[in-house]
Amino acid sequence: MDITAHMQQLGRQARAASRAMARASTATRNKALLLIADAIERDAAALKAANQQDLDAARAAGLAPALLDRLALSDKAIATMVDGLRQIVALPDPIGEISNMKVRPSGIQVGQMRVPLGVIGIIYEARPNVTVDAAGLCIKSGNATILRGGSEAIHCNRALAQLVAEGLAGAGLPAHGVQVVDTTDRAAVGALITMPEYVDVIVPRGGKGLIERLMKEATVPMIKHLDGICHVYIDSKADIDKALRIALNAKTHRYGTCNTMETLLVARDIAPAVLPRLAELYAAKEVELRADPESYEILRGYPNLVEAVEEDWRTEYLAPILSVKVVAGIDEAMEHINTYSSKHTEAIVTEDYSDAMRFLREVDSASVMVNASTRFADGFEYGLGAEIGISNDKLHARGPVGLEGLTSLKYVVFGHGEIRE
Amino acid sequence: MDITAHMQQLGRQARAASRAMARASTATRNKALLLIADAIERDAAALKAANQQDLDAARAAGLAPALLDRLALSDKAIATMVDGLRQIVALPDPIGEISNMKVRPSGIQVGQMRVPLGVIGIIYEARPNVTVDAAGLCIKSGNATILRGGSEAIHCNRALAQLVAEGLAGAGLPAHGVQVVDTTDRAAVGALITMPEYVDVIVPRGGKGLIERLMKEATVPMIKHLDGICHVYIDSKADIDKALRIALNAKTHRYGTCNTMETLLVARDIAPAVLPRLAELYAAKEVELRADPESYEILRGYPNLVEAVEEDWRTEYLAPILSVKVVAGIDEAMEHINTYSSKHTEAIVTEDYSDAMRFLREVDSASVMVNASTRFADGFEYGLGAEIGISNDKLHARGPVGLEGLTSLKYVVFGHGEIRE
Repeated sequence: MDITAHMQQLGRQARAASRAMARASTATRNKALLLIADAIERDAAALKAANQQDLDAARAAGLAPALLDRLALSDKAIATMVDGLRQIVALPDPIGEISNMKVRPSGIQVGQMRVPLGVIGIIYEARPNVTVDAAGLCIKSGNATILRGGSEAIHCNRALAQLVAEGLAGAGLPAHGVQVVDTTDRAAVGALITMPEYVDVIVPRGGKGLIERLMKEATVPMIKHLDGICHVYIDSKADIDKALRIALNAKTHRYGTCNTMETLLVARDIAPAVLPRLAELYAAKEVELRADPESYEILRGYPNLVEAVEEDWRTEYLAPILSVKVVAGIDEAMEHINTYSSKHTEAIVTEDYSDAMRFLREVDSASVMVNASTRFADGFEYGLGAEIGISNDKLHARGPVGLEGLTSLKYVVFGHGEIRE
Repeated sequence: MDITAHMQQLGRQARAASRAMARASTATRNKALLLIADAIERDAAALKAANQQDLDAARAAGLAPALLDRLALSDKAIATMVDGLRQIVALPDPIGEISNMKVRPSGIQVGQMRVPLGVIGIIYEARPNVTVDAAGLCIKSGNATILRGGSEAIHCNRALAQLVAEGLAGAGLPAHGVQVVDTTDRAAVGALITMPEYVDVIVPRGGKGLIERLMKEATVPMIKHLDGICHVYIDSKADIDKALRIALNAKTHRYGTCNTMETLLVARDIAPAVLPRLAELYAAKEVELRADPESYEILRGYPNLVEAVEEDWRTEYLAPILSVKVVAGIDEAMEHINTYSSKHTEAIVTEDYSDAMRFLREVDSASVMVNASTRFADGFEYGLGAEIGISNDKLHARGPVGLEGLTSLKYVVFGHGEIRE
């Protein structure tokens, strides 16, 4: 098979289908989602059998346990997928909404209408639940989509593709509204990210390695984040209880997520009061501390204490490891953040109003928080209802990306025969 | 001079200055704008002398009359620049505004704060007024900017750069907040569009040739449009007077602008009634008509009538030339538009409510209009107050781009010690 030609074919089909997807009423799109949910429930046993094929092959190939874990489709995972689709149905339809309507001196009325982007390409690892989540969000937002999941999940993804197709057909939507790439050839990814004539945006979901590879080659714009080097800054005016609670939660609630704190900055004034208590809390969770010289002095004698090196400030550990640095105050903290942050999420802990306001205004990251754990940087926690991904870029969507990030605003003009004089 | 190293230096300086620009109060940014306006008024004679140097050199080099025209800085052009700056002062400050504030079940309050993009690179032709307009919009929106104007305007741009620097200094803003590239070496452009670490977005202002060149090389995202192949569709239910007025205005108000109509589509039912009358109006303006077979038959005998070829539907004439096609109705019209349009601006003329609504919803262009001339697709006409450029892309800004297009929304979270459970 000529993979490039095959992907171009999928692209042409997606582009053609995107018009019908965009035109479809809210009711039609919701109907498709409900039919897919029902079909998944009905065929749960068959899905698990397909998944078992994938798991057997993956085990035989020696896939890492963490990856096997993500590949596995338990009853609970199936129920979560089905629930997710029904929750998407309940979300307000972003499409067609007109905002900012104004009457202009010329007599024309101008507003902005929210419309689908067109064709979304999703590239993800061997996680079958993403197939359903992503298809659901794209259908709801009136987009056509091309899904390319990790090859280890091919049998399960094929089975899911069937059920998605059934739902689309049942609602009268085009079969090519959602296409699952049915080849494990990696050249399919290269083709998908270099056909801007057919694909409007790529949403990659996966590790830093995947994203870096895509960034080098993609000519289609991406909604992506490379990594999450998130900071918490404990200001000299911090409430110590809040500081301990937030710094502990931001690091230890989950280690492998992009909104987990990787570097803790502490104001010099408050460091002797806060760092030893925090070190005890971290010690209980076996978190290794990589400390700059000043915090190292304060913490000397605590377990799991290591001297930080320059590379630590640039590292997303995704592990029970935290880099710690004492700073003079908010200016040095913001300087450090603006130098080393991946612009994902940063938080200040402070009771000082002006410091809080300065931090919110001056820190150039997708999410900036006062007195809250960085772990809140999440589409569900922000009330987006669902999350297709996270963007650390500044253009288009920034931060957690929900349905709105899969849409665009076009200008609509209501005239009465006006011409320009 | 090592141009790449020099541009990297400008980039580093811009990035550093961008923080102070973003932090500056509304009053500070407005003060800079007013000081620049005053300085331009004061030094009008010197600016005209610098411009005369450019004009003499350009004439000696045999620059085309149209380009000389754009290069020339008349008293009126100077007054317009000064007025433009003062109008920018009067615009509301987009920066710092928080929207969509919600209290979430967790207790956190989440909103979105409008912030500058950071560093904007502007690449434009030899038009000194763009130097001032672009600097003004970037200062107002709290961005640092690197301006690279056409080399024929170098003396005038240098003089303007001095006055901009004077205004920035007078307001206490960093000297590198606005940098004018002071070399005519074209390698400067290549460097500017390939340093995403220092430049957040490029706004190219110029012809299709420039944009195509940049698109091939740029690794920095661009806010751009390649061309404007705009359509007017006269529906079978059109009010004929409105149709004649709009079709005439959309083509003949100005020939060289990107929102000028290039293709007229007419419903079969109404073509015999509308096309001959329209042809007379166009004849009076010496507009050449390139007609498909069906409209050719209707118009046979009219002056300046030519048979259209496939290439015509893909051509932005920027001239008194119009391609004309008879279509069965709105479906064929939208099919033609979605095939050939550059996604800039399309209009329908109709009294039929459902056709109007379908056209607005289903045509996938940056501006879609009912009963109005395509010439209205413009930042001032839409009430943006000013226009830095136009985007035919769907991500980030779409259509005429004003101050808001030079900004981004970041999430801000107001907490009270919340952690994720």
